[in-house]
Amino acid sequence: MATGPDFASATASVSASDRVVISVDAMGGDRGPAAVVAGLADSMAQHPQMDAILHGDEAVVAPLVARHPILSGRCTLRHAPRVVTMEDKPAQVMRHGAGTSMWSTIDSVKDGEATVAVSCGNTGALMAVSMLRLRKLPGVNRPAIACLWPSRNPGGFNLMLDVGADVKAEADDLLQYATMGASYARNGMGLARPRIGLLNVGTEEHKGRAELKEAHDRMTAVAKVGSFDYVGFVEGGDLPSNRVDVIVTDGFTGNVALKTGEGTAKLISDFLRDAFGAGILSKFAALLAMNSLKRFQKRIDPRRVNGGVFLGLNGTVVKSHGAADATGVAAAIGLAYQLAQVRFIERLAARVASAEGAGQDAAQEAPGSDAGLGSSPTA
Amino acid sequence: MATGPDFASATASVSASDRVVISVDAMGGDRGPAAVVAGLADSMAQHPQMDAILHGDEAVVAPLVARHPILSGRCTLRHAPRVVTMEDKPAQVMRHGAGTSMWSTIDSVKDGEATVAVSCGNTGALMAVSMLRLRKLPGVNRPAIACLWPSRNPGGFNLMLDVGADVKAEADDLLQYATMGASYARNGMGLARPRIGLLNVGTEEHKGRAELKEAHDRMTAVAKVGSFDYVGFVEGGDLPSNRVDVIVTDGFTGNVALKTGEGTAKLISDFLRDAFGAGILSKFAALLAMNSLKRFQKRIDPRRVNGGVFLGLNGTVVKSHGAADATGVAAAIGLAYQLAQVRFIERLAARVASAEGAGQDAAQEAPGSDAGLGSSPTA
Repeated sequence: MATGPDFASATASVSASDRVVISVDAMGGDRGPAAVVAGLADSMAQHPQMDAILHGDEAVVAPLVARHPILSGRCTLRHAPRVVTMEDKPAQVMRHGAGTSMWSTIDSVKDGEATVAVSCGNTGALMAVSMLRLRKLPGVNRPAIACLWPSRNPGGFNLMLDVGADVKAEADDLLQYATMGASYARNGMGLARPRIGLLNVGTEEHKGRAELKEAHDRMTAVAKVGSFDYVGFVEGGDLPSNRVDVIVTDGFTGNVALKTGEGTAKLISDFLRDAFGAGILSKFAALLAMNSLKRFQKRIDPRRVNGGVFLGLNGTVVKSHGAADATGVAAAIGLAYQLAQVRFIERLAARVASAEGAGQDAAQEAPGSDAGLGSSPTA
Repeated sequence: MATGPDFASATASVSASDRVVISVDAMGGDRGPAAVVAGLADSMAQHPQMDAILHGDEAVVAPLVARHPILSGRCTLRHAPRVVTMEDKPAQVMRHGAGTSMWSTIDSVKDGEATVAVSCGNTGALMAVSMLRLRKLPGVNRPAIACLWPSRNPGGFNLMLDVGADVKAEADDLLQYATMGASYARNGMGLARPRIGLLNVGTEEHKGRAELKEAHDRMTAVAKVGSFDYVGFVEGGDLPSNRVDVIVTDGFTGNVALKTGEGTAKLISDFLRDAFGAGILSKFAALLAMNSLKRFQKRIDPRRVNGGVFLGLNGTVVKSHGAADATGVAAAIGLAYQLAQVRFIERLAARVASAEGAGQDAAQEAPGSDAGLGSSPTA
């Protein structure tokens, strides 16, 4: 797999071969297609090599596209008359979802005309359609959703998975999440040897559920010869810590933790605003401290890390927060672009196949099969 | 059950009959017995009717007690030569824990010389010793640990349970947590008709694990004739909301959520300190904003809500955070005092027995069996 430019075709079609095509669902977000189109325009301004296929109701989307000159010639509009709503049940969408913008967005990846799909729509439906159309990677039992988490790490973020693809996970699944999470951390976060932790209610070996104890023993064995470090059990309080890069858990616990963290951050922001709103001296102080407060808000701004990545499918899908504004959508599309650029899905598939072949006997794994990227994954 | 003063004995022994005795474990906290004794002294200053039995190594504790004149005549020292450490496993402590300060603390409640026990020690060991010595309330399958959670509620707090007594809970257990949590909210938080929510990964009825769907259906039925409102499924983001007063979940999920919330709050506080520490103008602004920042810190100060309450035993046990300082210990002891004063355990036992007798047919439940307390639980 080539990570550098393709010199053979570098003369005539340099621009075509280096282009990265993202498939974007214009519909389904809480703020409507205007936010998605604006986010796409922002992201295109940052990434000159990006092209996009935009899926949605042409009558609605075309006028929005016309407002952003940067999209001209780089964005293909694909008409899809129907929309998946937040209320639609995944099973219904799997049966009757053809013709929706979400279905069409995924099919662009399935058909190979785009590398990565991005949608702000209904998470359950998006996972169901992605599973149906893209199918699971060979050897993967349960796909997972991975998301970034603000932390004290040098890079500023940890990765947690699963945050909601499935409500349960057996020991096998947790091990596979570790493999997939480690591959993401290498390719998407530039960490040559990520540290993996297993989320539990205590760090002692005797604590927790049976599947966690089994996964703990097996990860300890695999990590010795694998391409990640296993730091053992971590607790909720370790999520923002510098102890760990990738936190592995089942989708129920991960989803509750993610939303609890977001809710706590929101509550604290509100309390802070209340505190600074009370009294004229406070308001004056807040004005003086504006830069500090902005720097602070930026560090905990959830829009900057918007985008849950579906792992374990034959194609990469990025789920943006339903309530994302243009800044949030641009972050999700930027993440998709980065993953497309490093050919993440090929690397992940190779890693999963390697771990699958190795099974418990991880000594068979070819070291560095995706670590050749080192710490400069976009090279 | 009398909630007012006992008039028959009100003449001769008014002071004795109104005294509330708390059993306190002086040992086992991360900051040693000095923090516990100082916290007890603070709490006694706030509650003139409180007496205490203090358990620990006499040679260590007696000199600490002597430093606080307020303890004189109100605090009995009970020598216990051994200490349960944070590393001791619950099963070991159950077999060999006699003679420890923790065991002795619980036995004062078992023997009826104190109403409530307070310890900063090892949570697993404290639950094990409490189960062994106090036994479960008739009809209770799994005891739970309940704790307060900062929220947008008028009272400033929600209650969540279980936060770590057991790593799993069936539908029956979740229903019982709802009954116990509602009783706590009425008696400890002054809410006549608490709103109960079931923690899940979405608010739609089709989401989540099988035991959650069963509990959801049964709570909907019970709430119609019960003494609480059932608001349905809530998500992690609702924990600090004004949608719900009591959040019911299994001990694994609850523990992860609690620690994630604490960890997020700590991370944000650190980021805020960093932001205000950078630059002279920021420092000046921080100085001006001191009152605002203090008001803010107070609202999210975990020491103010220190104390997990063990529910479902023949006696009330309050677990203080292991790292609690004197302020934190005083908060835990103050909570214990409040629960003792309203005869919480008798009310809880009556409520559990009533729910047990009613079973699925909640119509048999005597309405108001503990709601007579109304919104002034300490009356």
